[in-house]
Amino acid sequence: MEMERVHNFNPGPAALPREVLEQAQRELLSYDRSGMSVMEISHRSAAFEAIIGEARDSLKELMNIPDNYRILFVQGGASTQFAAVPLNLFSKNGKADYVVSGNFAQKAKEQAERYGLVNVAASSKDKNFSYIPALDRAKFTPDADFFHITLNNTVYGTRFTSLPETGDIPIVADASSCILSEACDVSRFGLIYAGAQKNIGPSGVTIVIVREDLVGHALACAPVMLDYKTYVESDSLYNTPPTFAIYMSLLVFRRLKALGGVSAIQKINEEKAAYLYNFIDNSKIFTGTAERKDRSIMNVTFVLPSKELDAKFVREATAAGLVGLKGHKAAGGMRASIYNAVEFESVKALVEFMKKFELENGGAL
Amino acid sequence: MEMERVHNFNPGPAALPREVLEQAQRELLSYDRSGMSVMEISHRSAAFEAIIGEARDSLKELMNIPDNYRILFVQGGASTQFAAVPLNLFSKNGKADYVVSGNFAQKAKEQAERYGLVNVAASSKDKNFSYIPALDRAKFTPDADFFHITLNNTVYGTRFTSLPETGDIPIVADASSCILSEACDVSRFGLIYAGAQKNIGPSGVTIVIVREDLVGHALACAPVMLDYKTYVESDSLYNTPPTFAIYMSLLVFRRLKALGGVSAIQKINEEKAAYLYNFIDNSKIFTGTAERKDRSIMNVTFVLPSKELDAKFVREATAAGLVGLKGHKAAGGMRASIYNAVEFESVKALVEFMKKFELENGGAL
Repeated sequence: MEMERVHNFNPGPAALPREVLEQAQRELLSYDRSGMSVMEISHRSAAFEAIIGEARDSLKELMNIPDNYRILFVQGGASTQFAAVPLNLFSKNGKADYVVSGNFAQKAKEQAERYGLVNVAASSKDKNFSYIPALDRAKFTPDADFFHITLNNTVYGTRFTSLPETGDIPIVADASSCILSEACDVSRFGLIYAGAQKNIGPSGVTIVIVREDLVGHALACAPVMLDYKTYVESDSLYNTPPTFAIYMSLLVFRRLKALGGVSAIQKINEEKAAYLYNFIDNSKIFTGTAERKDRSIMNVTFVLPSKELDAKFVREATAAGLVGLKGHKAAGGMRASIYNAVEFESVKALVEFMKKFELENGGAL
Repeated sequence: MEMERVHNFNPGPAALPREVLEQAQRELLSYDRSGMSVMEISHRSAAFEAIIGEARDSLKELMNIPDNYRILFVQGGASTQFAAVPLNLFSKNGKADYVVSGNFAQKAKEQAERYGLVNVAASSKDKNFSYIPALDRAKFTPDADFFHITLNNTVYGTRFTSLPETGDIPIVADASSCILSEACDVSRFGLIYAGAQKNIGPSGVTIVIVREDLVGHALACAPVMLDYKTYVESDSLYNTPPTFAIYMSLLVFRRLKALGGVSAIQKINEEKAAYLYNFIDNSKIFTGTAERKDRSIMNVTFVLPSKELDAKFVREATAAGLVGLKGHKAAGGMRASIYNAVEFESVKALVEFMKKFELENGGAL
């Protein structure tokens, strides 16, 4: 059946590839001729072991993950990792550096403070997180157990374009809103975590990519289900995982491989972002809010000259089938999240709508 | 499209109602004419707030949950609750009683021991958990913060048919494999938790029903995402919840209401279980493994006279479209999980198959 679909700019949960949804729809009552939905099969069955195994292998291939890293499928979102990271990694000196580049970075830092000594190595709070702060090694903790960054700041539309030089201190990155969107040298990180609901699948599964030597040293108070060792030893099958969300992630991984992998999607993502930023930079009424050098290619933030116009824009865009454009309350204005699953066609439709809006509303300014 | 479906006796993830799957299938690409899958809409949208709100209200109605209880939608399964319960409830004396009536009860106890003093009030380990142990109040801890039981033991096919008399000490119950299967006086409990993947929806969402006065006293080391207060204060929307799993749960709640609620399904469940146990009790080759007085109406465990016959039975049943019958490795033999979504027709098909198997194999004994 043909369904009318909208242009979906939601920040997460976000757009999924149409063909992935169609495949899930086709086999929703009988997965692989089993006579059961994928939701109804045991996580201990050969069928599900094949699903989670292929998901793991596909992600390893897509991100070119070295052999000394483990891929874990966990639950609870990045917010659970905000505790799991320090609970697992505060094993030597109980110290860590955090770059506070947004509200989620701030939340990550606050949870780490429950378990050890946290140093804010840099912050961009002074300008409402509209940029990535410069890093000064003199402000790093020499004996930190890890160095935490938020690779892409969903709310503010900024991203790290280079990684801090931390020597032997492992970099830990929240990559929730940019995983698989562009090339990433995993060997530069000790640990990468990402909620799936932006660039991968539906909400309910979280990916952890962790260097093996960082596993097995959790604090005594770490719950079993927050200890990475539990997942490493059981291949993420210690208890019932979110089977359907993992299955959907696999379908997304398969599609990304078919499209040519991360380098291919990166090119498309850069083109999509450039197309939108280029329009904004040449507009008389739309203004980008993130510093140009730190602009995200996943979340494009912009404002109009007044809050009234912002609200009018969001309202009229929604009515025109362009949804999810309202900015986060902490940032205001608008945000177009243009993750992997958002087609260039949707970005073009957005720019056309912005042009029309500018024509209709530019004169009054 | 018509799909061949099997008789699904999986212990969890388990059978879902066909009409629920069909509705999910119909609207998988466009939920409620939104032009988006329910997986693609924001958890902050009015549409999703309506879903989670109706899910909460429906469960409250179905279980007749008193006003001084809160319903939380969390992640991580019962195994995460094994830590969350002591982390939240060890607020007075750091002591608790646990009844060890199965392997999951044992795991719950072990996690609690990380955070306080745990007393095993009773255990049925001596006979491989084939019964619910008698409770002796003399063995209860007078100043325990809570008293933990596993209401239905999925692996061994037993259930509590009466609750312990604990006075003011709150009873905490793992109800993963029996929630919504029979009437339950919630006011007798301080807290009930249940992974959804047996009697409710797909895996990935866990229900917590907690008396308000037990919230807000978590230990300092409790991660934010394991602190019940986080969910109470945010209506379970502190971070992105497992939106699709909650939507599926809502569809199951709606269907159960339409069927007449818990009392109606309880009658059907008792009939299904009686039908199967009656056949087993009159069989010459099948033997039930749980003590009769403690028999579960959700998980029916039984054996044949030899492991070879057990294996043959499971193999031939699977080939005949009766799946998920192999017992848990800790219990051996067979197990038919006959949760709410398993139709009487499936139980009848199983009994017919068992009759045939008995005819074909009984002579050799």
